Amino acid sequence: MTRLTIALDAMGGDFGPQVTVPASVQALSRFADLNVILVGDEHHIKASLNQLNAQHHSRLSIVHAPDEIPNDMRPSTALRRSHGTSMRVALEKVASGEADACVSAGNTGALMALSKYLLKLLPGIDRPALVTALPGANYQRKWLLDLGANVACDADTLFQFAVMGAVLAEAELGHTPRIGLLNIGEEAIKGNDLVRRCADLLQHSESVRYTGYVEGDQIYTGETDVIVCDGFVGNVALKTSEGVARLIIDKVKAHLHPHPIKRWIAKWLFSDLLNQLQQLKPDQYNGASLLGLRGIVVKSHGRADIAAYENAIFEAVHEVERQIPTKISDRLEAVLLERH
Amino acid sequence: MTRLTIALDAMGGDFGPQVTVPASVQALSRFADLNVILVGDEHHIKASLNQLNAQHHSRLSIVHAPDEIPNDMRPSTALRRSHGTSMRVALEKVASGEADACVSAGNTGALMALSKYLLKLLPGIDRPALVTALPGANYQRKWLLDLGANVACDADTLFQFAVMGAVLAEAELGHTPRIGLLNIGEEAIKGNDLVRRCADLLQHSESVRYTGYVEGDQIYTGETDVIVCDGFVGNVALKTSEGVARLIIDKVKAHLHPHPIKRWIAKWLFSDLLNQLQQLKPDQYNGASLLGLRGIVVKSHGRADIAAYENAIFEAVHEVERQIPTKISDRLEAVLLERH
Repeated sequence: MTRLTIALDAMGGDFGPQVTVPASVQALSRFADLNVILVGDEHHIKASLNQLNAQHHSRLSIVHAPDEIPNDMRPSTALRRSHGTSMRVALEKVASGEADACVSAGNTGALMALSKYLLKLLPGIDRPALVTALPGANYQRKWLLDLGANVACDADTLFQFAVMGAVLAEAELGHTPRIGLLNIGEEAIKGNDLVRRCADLLQHSESVRYTGYVEGDQIYTGETDVIVCDGFVGNVALKTSEGVARLIIDKVKAHLHPHPIKRWIAKWLFSDLLNQLQQLKPDQYNGASLLGLRGIVVKSHGRADIAAYENAIFEAVHEVERQIPTKISDRLEAVLLERH
Repeated sequence: MTRLTIALDAMGGDFGPQVTVPASVQALSRFADLNVILVGDEHHIKASLNQLNAQHHSRLSIVHAPDEIPNDMRPSTALRRSHGTSMRVALEKVASGEADACVSAGNTGALMALSKYLLKLLPGIDRPALVTALPGANYQRKWLLDLGANVACDADTLFQFAVMGAVLAEAELGHTPRIGLLNIGEEAIKGNDLVRRCADLLQHSESVRYTGYVEGDQIYTGETDVIVCDGFVGNVALKTSEGVARLIIDKVKAHLHPHPIKRWIAKWLFSDLLNQLQQLKPDQYNGASLLGLRGIVVKSHGRADIAAYENAIFEAVHEVERQIPTKISDRLEAVLLERH
């Protein structure tokens, strides 16, 4: 592994430096070639570092940027009024080449708008897409995109999402992933015009292994590795999954909680099962990637704890190592050649 | 309860008369004023009735219609080539006034197209909507619509869905239901134009109790009784829910199955919990209603068993008793008056 640098928006998320600083220190101890730039309020960051006795870590630097982008700020406002904020300065470190990737748990809309503005889109990409890994049956990861970066897409945009998702999944899986389009029926006559037009593009492309339509109940259990849809549908599918999983898992916990003996027996006999259920939670993989940019940006959940935030840093490290933007760019060139 | 008659498409669904006939006989024993018209292949129906010793039931009649609509037939084809099929003849019984409602487990697209053609839409309704009840946290039912009758809607159509869902939920709950719009963020700036325009219509209406946007993870656990969205999004949300619930519940079963002692202990100590988990399955309430028509049509799952199909018959009986189409019509008149 070559040396790499991640710029962290240390103030973003519900807990700010209380989470981002310890997660960084843990990530540094795990990756010997990792450098971290903590961007945020110097006073707060140093206080958190002091608590961890890590104020003099040689691979850790601080860039003072005390302002934060509020969670309710519109993307258009964030573009005009974000100078000097921790999120913007962290992204600027990627734009200037000082950092290889940025991680933020801040305002998603602002992060997308600023990333697009500061890092620019890759050639051949109309819109960036937000993608995350999901737990499938049999411990297979799956990827769903777009998760809300774009509420209205055309067939070309969806096709680009398929190409980007294929590149990301292939780097992780090591083989050509199967690409599916989220639709409301498996038969070709079902669905809307957008999905049908994109299916036509995918069927005629040699650059992706398109395997057909996927219905909602096949996202987690089906044979498809990457599931493509517009950002409205993807966001609803992801959040609905999280809601159902939480409802069921909370029901199990609520049932066991008031009974010490049942709790003990459950822990003794069913700990495997309880662990496996936790691993089926759709939000277990923290760190959604913003794909399609000339740079790497990873969005953490706002409410991520230290372990979850560390996961988002790992996701950024992996994408740097795997040179995801370059690979997307190469694949898109192949698509353009295939069309001409 | 006054006398009422349900026309059943006895051939529809994966199991045909093997399920529809026993379910009808059970429903007849539960509702003393119910009459059933079994529409389908007389020979098959009589064979099923003989098995049950119910061939001379006084409230049961048979209408011979041996042809079936295949599951892969397009709606437009079904409109032209369905004369004499069990589904069409059952709907014609409603259109002619011989039956108060129709239940079918057959081709959904064909059922929607034929229902609209034969029964006609209520005044003020542009498109029918498919709605089902879902299990919420704390045993509260919720209703989600549209589930796939319409893949592209405008704001007025979504508004009509809200009114129809409100009427159906109010008849069940006995109080004014809270109506929410499915969206990808709670803040007013989030989401697409369609949802924002419909929110504006709902906010200015006295006819529904609109409570704002609902995100996917709040469908089951939130404070909203009726969740409104277009048919593409609703179908994805429902099927994704079913997929996640099945994934988790199958995991529990697969874990317990190979261990007789664990299975016994689980049954002994956790049977309440296992029952409760079953009750959280999104597809437990069989019987989706097609609203907006001058008649009552209930769609059963194709793979419904006898108990599930009986549930679909009950849903039709309840809608007849509650005069849902008349109530929708009255509510729409109130909406029109409010606008002028």
